[in-house]
Amino acid sequence: MISKVKNAMSTLVGGMACAADSLPPRFPYGRPDFLDLTPELLQYSTEHASRPVLTVKRDSRLPWRTGYAEVINAGKSMLNEDQASCEKVFVKKPSGKHRNSSMLEDNGVSKVPGHPLKCLDGTGIPLHFWGVFDGHAGSGAAIMASKLLHRLIRDRLGEVCHLLENPNCAPPICLAKNGSPYQADTKKGAAQETEDPDAVTDSSVRFHMEKVVSLQSLVMGVIETAFTQMDNLIEKEKASYAISGGCCALAAIHLMGKLYVANAGDSRAIIIRNKEVIPMTNEFTPESERQRLQYLGFLRPELLGNEFTSIEFPRRIQHSELGKKMLYRDHTMTGWAYKTIVEDDLKFPLIYGEGKKARVMATIGVTRGLGDHELKVYNSNIYIKPFLSCAPEVKVYDMEENQHGPDDVLVMGTDGLWDVTTDREVADAVSSYLSGCDPSDPMRYTLAAQDLLMRSRGVLKERGWRLPNERLGSGDDITVFVVPLARPESET
Amino acid sequence: MISKVKNAMSTLVGGMACAADSLPPRFPYGRPDFLDLTPELLQYSTEHASRPVLTVKRDSRLPWRTGYAEVINAGKSMLNEDQASCEKVFVKKPSGKHRNSSMLEDNGVSKVPGHPLKCLDGTGIPLHFWGVFDGHAGSGAAIMASKLLHRLIRDRLGEVCHLLENPNCAPPICLAKNGSPYQADTKKGAAQETEDPDAVTDSSVRFHMEKVVSLQSLVMGVIETAFTQMDNLIEKEKASYAISGGCCALAAIHLMGKLYVANAGDSRAIIIRNKEVIPMTNEFTPESERQRLQYLGFLRPELLGNEFTSIEFPRRIQHSELGKKMLYRDHTMTGWAYKTIVEDDLKFPLIYGEGKKARVMATIGVTRGLGDHELKVYNSNIYIKPFLSCAPEVKVYDMEENQHGPDDVLVMGTDGLWDVTTDREVADAVSSYLSGCDPSDPMRYTLAAQDLLMRSRGVLKERGWRLPNERLGSGDDITVFVVPLARPESET
Repeated sequence: MISKVKNAMSTLVGGMACAADSLPPRFPYGRPDFLDLTPELLQYSTEHASRPVLTVKRDSRLPWRTGYAEVINAGKSMLNEDQASCEKVFVKKPSGKHRNSSMLEDNGVSKVPGHPLKCLDGTGIPLHFWGVFDGHAGSGAAIMASKLLHRLIRDRLGEVCHLLENPNCAPPICLAKNGSPYQADTKKGAAQETEDPDAVTDSSVRFHMEKVVSLQSLVMGVIETAFTQMDNLIEKEKASYAISGGCCALAAIHLMGKLYVANAGDSRAIIIRNKEVIPMTNEFTPESERQRLQYLGFLRPELLGNEFTSIEFPRRIQHSELGKKMLYRDHTMTGWAYKTIVEDDLKFPLIYGEGKKARVMATIGVTRGLGDHELKVYNSNIYIKPFLSCAPEVKVYDMEENQHGPDDVLVMGTDGLWDVTTDREVADAVSSYLSGCDPSDPMRYTLAAQDLLMRSRGVLKERGWRLPNERLGSGDDITVFVVPLARPESET
Repeated sequence: MISKVKNAMSTLVGGMACAADSLPPRFPYGRPDFLDLTPELLQYSTEHASRPVLTVKRDSRLPWRTGYAEVINAGKSMLNEDQASCEKVFVKKPSGKHRNSSMLEDNGVSKVPGHPLKCLDGTGIPLHFWGVFDGHAGSGAAIMASKLLHRLIRDRLGEVCHLLENPNCAPPICLAKNGSPYQADTKKGAAQETEDPDAVTDSSVRFHMEKVVSLQSLVMGVIETAFTQMDNLIEKEKASYAISGGCCALAAIHLMGKLYVANAGDSRAIIIRNKEVIPMTNEFTPESERQRLQYLGFLRPELLGNEFTSIEFPRRIQHSELGKKMLYRDHTMTGWAYKTIVEDDLKFPLIYGEGKKARVMATIGVTRGLGDHELKVYNSNIYIKPFLSCAPEVKVYDMEENQHGPDDVLVMGTDGLWDVTTDREVADAVSSYLSGCDPSDPMRYTLAAQDLLMRSRGVLKERGWRLPNERLGSGDDITVFVVPLARPESET
């Protein structure tokens, strides 16, 4: 049995048939460490026929009593391509010795774990991290991101740790090499460019203003650049390891009283507060990002490989329709107009299809995420990657501006959850489940996560996985975090 | 006195000193026709010292009893560079003779005004149009757009008039040359690409779906393409005429029970219904469109002419700061992070400045509009136009889904109005003014527009134009429409 799993792993971790097959995986396939699965349970988790729900054990203490549940797909891939991570780490200054050099080794992990400078209370600034990574075309990118993204964020924040220690001071615009604020002689700069050094004209103000950047904007920027760094690391390590596929990445980071939710892909996070839904993400799909992708195709037509057109049509055009008029829209349009069909319009549309069937270049149904550097249009030499962005959208929720009860939570889930259950249904289900649950039960958020997951998976009937209303359940991998927003003092 | 105006006109209509000076203006300078100004009043309107408010006359019947007021700037340009139009026109089928050819003469006006096919009740489908055009660097583009944009929209809608007549039918995806729906043999097309012509696989569905497009989306698309056509027409006619500058364009189009508000620039429209504000536009400025512009500069660095960098910094960088770290953000980021300064970062940022002082390439403070084809960065050969977009954002308001009282209105204004008066203040002022006004007074909306305008202009004191709270009034040109949403049956 185990060898079957091992075989599956070695096949899939390597990804699609290519030279990468001979490379070792960057990380072996597995489920999140916090599940603490035995080999038998790992094997059990891969049963597509029964789709068992995995949750954390009663004695496993995830930070904040975080609830978690996951289930494998109904057969669309051999392994569960979702991954998850939940970590408490500490943001620390890098040691003086290393401050001026890159703090990252090739694998993206701090060089100086044993030599942190003391920061704040001596242990660093606590950072809580929750991530869900929805892989496709293999598990490699999702596993690697689940192991490293929080470390990259921690280390990048470590570089500005001395600024975080003064939360009421705006970050200096310029830093000297030793990290201390650097004040250029801007007056001199101004004088050089105006004829009268004493004249403060509108134009000199315009040319010499300084924008004030908040500490929150700095943290957002650090998270954004950490996603880019993660993506670059995957690309770089493909030279030495088999890192298959790509993944949507959704991360929640709690730092100094604020919750930063960063999303690249079609996973989703909502806050449920007093039974109301506060959306924390937008999904990035071929439909929601149509204009960005069309704009890129319009500006860089060579990326379309003479096979695709950046113009959208409501259906494919046939040769017999040349010269007729067809509805279209380009990157500037939200509405539709008619255009006379020319030869170039016979190419396949860059964006095509509706809803879950919408695809970029007939290949992929999400438009942001990590990995996918080798992904090409089937039977062609056209790369998808330039159209995919690894940039997350980051939203911020101030935990301290709001009062939270024990039933107020952050729910994070991959699209398997949300495809069949709406935000409102999730909020109602969680609120209803938690209100019937002992507030002191350490398992209450995991049970709520399991309940949510069951609602989207359904039960196996003769005609497949079905919800109580007989609609089809989700056949996708499903991963859910339920994170309580009110915590005992000891947990902050 | 008049000759002074004439001189000013001939100087300014021609625009900046260039070969265009020797060309005739496309349209002579003037104020909107509906103001029906005498030469004396036209001269009076240009007095920067007194800034007289112009409104429509009591006996001028603008459609829907529309209210209007305008005032010249406090001296920043010799003439009022705002323009406005308010028209009731009829959408008609082009004649059969012309159906297959372009319906536009070179000046963008229908070739066949005297030969419309009868449509609906014989006169065509009524279309109401309100436009405000905020010019810069000359009046030419704003005047031309105020004369022609509504005609372009009317004529383009005329091409699909037969589809508008069946408001409950979705527009056909493909039209034959005679305008009738064309149904391709899609089954045959599908069969050619799947091995088994009878097999309906997921992939064949994906490749052969048809999107349903609503009539509303078609009208939106027609408006969007009419803006592009208007912009192309300005460019084309610059070969024969002096058409100076560019303009922000804000248009409201009422057609068949729906109000389409199309905005390209920093003018603004709000609906005030039951004293509540419904925003109908977003402003397009260097700050709001930063990422779009940075993306273009990133993908097409040659457009930056080796003078500008697409990366944003909070202030200019000095040579002495090379090698230090500075806050930055690129086209993927919302937050800020630190980067080590390299030689390339010493270039001037593509987007620079804050609020009303933000500029694209240190030159222009709006990012959408018509015209500006000749606009270059000062003392360089770098064109601004590729960064400016003529594409409007179109929002739709369903007039028939809502009940409107006599104090419910659409307010449209150039930025001169909104720079000093917030949406909320405008809504409070209009609601308060109208509620104290006889509902049957035909001038009530013009008086409300005049009241709004005075609130933003203020009164002339020793220290310039001041509001009652002593803050500075707007020194810009100001143009305001107040359009009632409830109308007598006879006016629909």
